[in-house]
Amino acid sequence: MMKLGGLFHPTGNHIAAWLSPDSQLDAGSNFQHYVKLAKTAEAARFDLLFLADAAAVRGGDLAALSRWPQYMAYFEPTTLLAGIAAMTQHIGLVATATTSYNEPYNIARRYASLDHISAGRAGWNVVTSSNLDESMNFGRDEHFSHETRYERAREFVGVVRGLWDSWEDDAFIRDRESGVYFRPDSLHTLDHRGTHFSVRGPLNIARPPQGHPVIAQAGSSNDGMELAAETAEIVFTAQHTLEKAKAFYDDLKSRMSRYGRQPEQLKIMPGLNPVIGSTREEAKQRHAELQAMIQPEVGLELLSNALGGFDLRGYDLDGPLPGTISAENTNTSKSTVQSVLDMANRENLTIRQLYQKMAGARGQRTIIGTPVDIADEMEAWFRAEAVDGFLVQPAVLPGDLDVFAATVVPELQRRGLFRTKYEGATLRENLGLTRPANRFTKAGSQ
Amino acid sequence: MMKLGGLFHPTGNHIAAWLSPDSQLDAGSNFQHYVKLAKTAEAARFDLLFLADAAAVRGGDLAALSRWPQYMAYFEPTTLLAGIAAMTQHIGLVATATTSYNEPYNIARRYASLDHISAGRAGWNVVTSSNLDESMNFGRDEHFSHETRYERAREFVGVVRGLWDSWEDDAFIRDRESGVYFRPDSLHTLDHRGTHFSVRGPLNIARPPQGHPVIAQAGSSNDGMELAAETAEIVFTAQHTLEKAKAFYDDLKSRMSRYGRQPEQLKIMPGLNPVIGSTREEAKQRHAELQAMIQPEVGLELLSNALGGFDLRGYDLDGPLPGTISAENTNTSKSTVQSVLDMANRENLTIRQLYQKMAGARGQRTIIGTPVDIADEMEAWFRAEAVDGFLVQPAVLPGDLDVFAATVVPELQRRGLFRTKYEGATLRENLGLTRPANRFTKAGSQ
Repeated sequence: MMKLGGLFHPTGNHIAAWLSPDSQLDAGSNFQHYVKLAKTAEAARFDLLFLADAAAVRGGDLAALSRWPQYMAYFEPTTLLAGIAAMTQHIGLVATATTSYNEPYNIARRYASLDHISAGRAGWNVVTSSNLDESMNFGRDEHFSHETRYERAREFVGVVRGLWDSWEDDAFIRDRESGVYFRPDSLHTLDHRGTHFSVRGPLNIARPPQGHPVIAQAGSSNDGMELAAETAEIVFTAQHTLEKAKAFYDDLKSRMSRYGRQPEQLKIMPGLNPVIGSTREEAKQRHAELQAMIQPEVGLELLSNALGGFDLRGYDLDGPLPGTISAENTNTSKSTVQSVLDMANRENLTIRQLYQKMAGARGQRTIIGTPVDIADEMEAWFRAEAVDGFLVQPAVLPGDLDVFAATVVPELQRRGLFRTKYEGATLRENLGLTRPANRFTKAGSQ
Repeated sequence: MMKLGGLFHPTGNHIAAWLSPDSQLDAGSNFQHYVKLAKTAEAARFDLLFLADAAAVRGGDLAALSRWPQYMAYFEPTTLLAGIAAMTQHIGLVATATTSYNEPYNIARRYASLDHISAGRAGWNVVTSSNLDESMNFGRDEHFSHETRYERAREFVGVVRGLWDSWEDDAFIRDRESGVYFRPDSLHTLDHRGTHFSVRGPLNIARPPQGHPVIAQAGSSNDGMELAAETAEIVFTAQHTLEKAKAFYDDLKSRMSRYGRQPEQLKIMPGLNPVIGSTREEAKQRHAELQAMIQPEVGLELLSNALGGFDLRGYDLDGPLPGTISAENTNTSKSTVQSVLDMANRENLTIRQLYQKMAGARGQRTIIGTPVDIADEMEAWFRAEAVDGFLVQPAVLPGDLDVFAATVVPELQRRGLFRTKYEGATLRENLGLTRPANRFTKAGSQ
C-alpha cells in the first residue's frame, strides 16, 4: 500500500503562496491553521504530517526576504506537533530537529514525550543543519564540516535510541499492594562515552509507545544515504525522473543489508508538488497564475540559497548560470546544489527560467494535471518500485490540500493503492514498520 | 486580588500519593490526566499551572526509588503544555527548563512557540539545575559551581529576552498588494557575545503575544533572590511561617528598585499543600491516612536528597540528624538544605519525624483543616502582604484538586479575595504584569 505524508510549509510550498487568496496569511503563527491541515490530512488517511525546520531565519538580502515569508518566522515543530497531537487521533507527527545544535538527552526526552502525548504517533526527522546562520546562533563562528556533521549525527542517533531503551516496556508494574511502582531491574543506564557526546542516562520518561519514535532523514549525499541505510525508517528525497528515483531507491535499499536491516523497514517518499485542475487546461492555468505571482527578487534569492549562497545579482537573468558554480565549493547540501545544476543543464535553462521552475516547487517534482493524471503518475512510480509513497507538498495551504484530499486521494483509494482506514494505532503500525525490541531486555524475560 | 497557581506533581504532591486510590496511577505518561487537571484548574479560575522538571531521573538507592515514582519518568514540560494549550483557553502554562543544559536560542524558540500556540499563556520557570545526575547526561563529569550557574542563568535569560525582541510587534504587515510580508527594518539582530554564550539571532518566530512569556523562578539563595529581583515575574518559594514569609517578601521586593523595577511587577507565591476535610477531624484523619502510607525507605531517601545526598542509612531513625550536616558542604540548593535543618532544629525532630513531616508536603507548608480554615490562613498571609498568592500543590491528583476547586476556591471568591472570571486574555494580563516594550522599537515609531 502506498504511503502518504504531507509536508506543510506555512503558507504552502509555492514560493508565492502567501500572495494567493487561498492561503492562510498568518500561517507561521496561527495554530488553528495547522490543526485544520492536520484534521484534513487525517480525514484523508495520510500516514503523517512532516514539519521542516531550521534554527535560524534564512540569511540573505533583507529586501528580498521581506517578500518571501517562508521560514522566516514560524512555530518550533515539537511544540506545534504536541499541540496538534491533542487535536488529532491517527495521523503521524514528524518534526525536524538538528543533531548539530541540540543535546541527545533533550531530543530523546522531547520526542518520547511527543510519542506519549500522541499515543504512538511521533517521528523525528534527523538533520545535520547546513548553514552558517544556524552556527552563529549557537556560539560558533563556523559551521561543522560535512564530515563532522555526519559523524555527530550518527553518534547522536545512537545515543537517542539508547536512551529510549532506558526503561523496559513492562517496567512500570504500579502495584499498590506491594508498594513497588517499577521493577528496579527494568531501569538501564546507557553510560555512553563517545567522540562527540558523553551521556550517562537513564532517560526520565517511560519507553515511548512505539518503542522508538520513527526516524526520518532527507540526506541524499553518500554520507546521508549511508546514515539513512543504517538508521532511517523514512527517507524524504527530491526526485525528478522515474529513472533516477528508481536508481536512488535501489541504491539506498541495497545498502541496508550491511546493517542487518530488511528493505521494507525503510520507506522512501520523494516530494511531490501537485497542481490540480478539473481539466489539464485548468491545472496549467492554475500553475501559470501562481508562477506569475513570483516576485523576481524572491526567485533570485531562492536560487542563490539553493546554490549555497552564490550571489547571482548582476548576472544576466536571461543568460545561463555562471560556470564557476559547482557542488564542491559550498558547505551546504552537495546533493541539493548538484540537483539544481543538473536541472539547469538538462533543460538548458536561463537563470530566470531556472528560478521560476524552482520557485514553483522548491526543488521538488511538480505534476500539473487532473486528479487522474496525478494518480497515474503516482501509480506508475509506485508500481515501478521507485518509491514507497510520496510526501505531498501542496502549493497553497490550506486550499490545495483540500483539493488533493477531495480528488486525488479518492482516486488512489479507488485503485486500491491507498488505505480507506488506518491499519493500526501508531505511526509505526500504519507504515508497516517493526517495533524495535529493547536492547536491554533479556530474551525470554518478558 | 490573590493569585493562584497549581503545581501538579504527577500523582500529587504527597510522596505516597500513588498509593492512594484517589490518584491517577499512570500519571507520568497519561496525557488525558493532565488535560483533566488543567481543565479543573481553569474552571476554578486559577492563574496558571506550573510544571517542575529535571533533566535526569533522581539518583539514589534504586530499591527506594522503585517505591517513589515522582520524577522518575514523566512528560517533558514544554511538549506537555503545548498539548494542554490546545485543550484549554485561559489558564497560564508555566514550564520549567534549565539554563545549565540548554541553548538560549532553543529555549527562546520553544517558549515563544508555546506562547503563540496558547495565544499568550506561556511562562518559563528558570532553574539552574542542582545535581550531578543532570550534568552527567550532558557530557560533564561535574556540575557547574553555584556561582557559575547563576552567572550563566543571568546571561542566558538576558539572551532569551533579547531574542524575543527580534521582531517588532507590528513587523508583519502581510500586504498582498505591495508584495511585502514584513517591514525589513522591523527585524533585529541581537549579536550577543558574552562570557558563556555567543548568539547572533534573530529569532525565527514572531514576537510572542505577551511580548515576553512570563519569567518564573524559585531560587531563595542570595544569588537566587538577586536574579529574581532583576528578572523574575513570579517567584515560587517554600515558606513555613508568616514572619519568615513576610521577611522574604519585603527583602525580595526591596531589591527590585536596584534594577528599576516596581514591586508589583513580581508576584511572590509560596507553595501551599492543603489537606482538606469537611471537619478538622476529618482533615486530620485524611492527613494521618496519607502519612501512614509513606514507606520508610522512601521517607529516608527523600530526606537524604533534600540534604544534598547525605547518606542517612545506619543512623538511628529515632535520634536527631547528625551534626555534621551543614548547608555549606553540598552543591545543591543551599537554601533548601538550610530550611530542612531549620525545621529539624525548630521542632526538635528525630530523623523519622523529620522525614514524615517532609514526605507529606515535600518541603512546602501544609495546612490541615476545613475549607474555611484554609481560606483563613491564605487570607491572613495575603492581607499581611507576605504573599501575592499561592502555588497550590494538591496532595493527591486528581482527587485533591477537585476538592480544593469545589470548596476553597468558592470560599475565597465569597470573600472577594479571588476572581470569579478571568480579567484578561493572557497570563500576563491575568497576573497584572506589564507587557514588556521591545528594546529595539524606537519611541514614536509605532
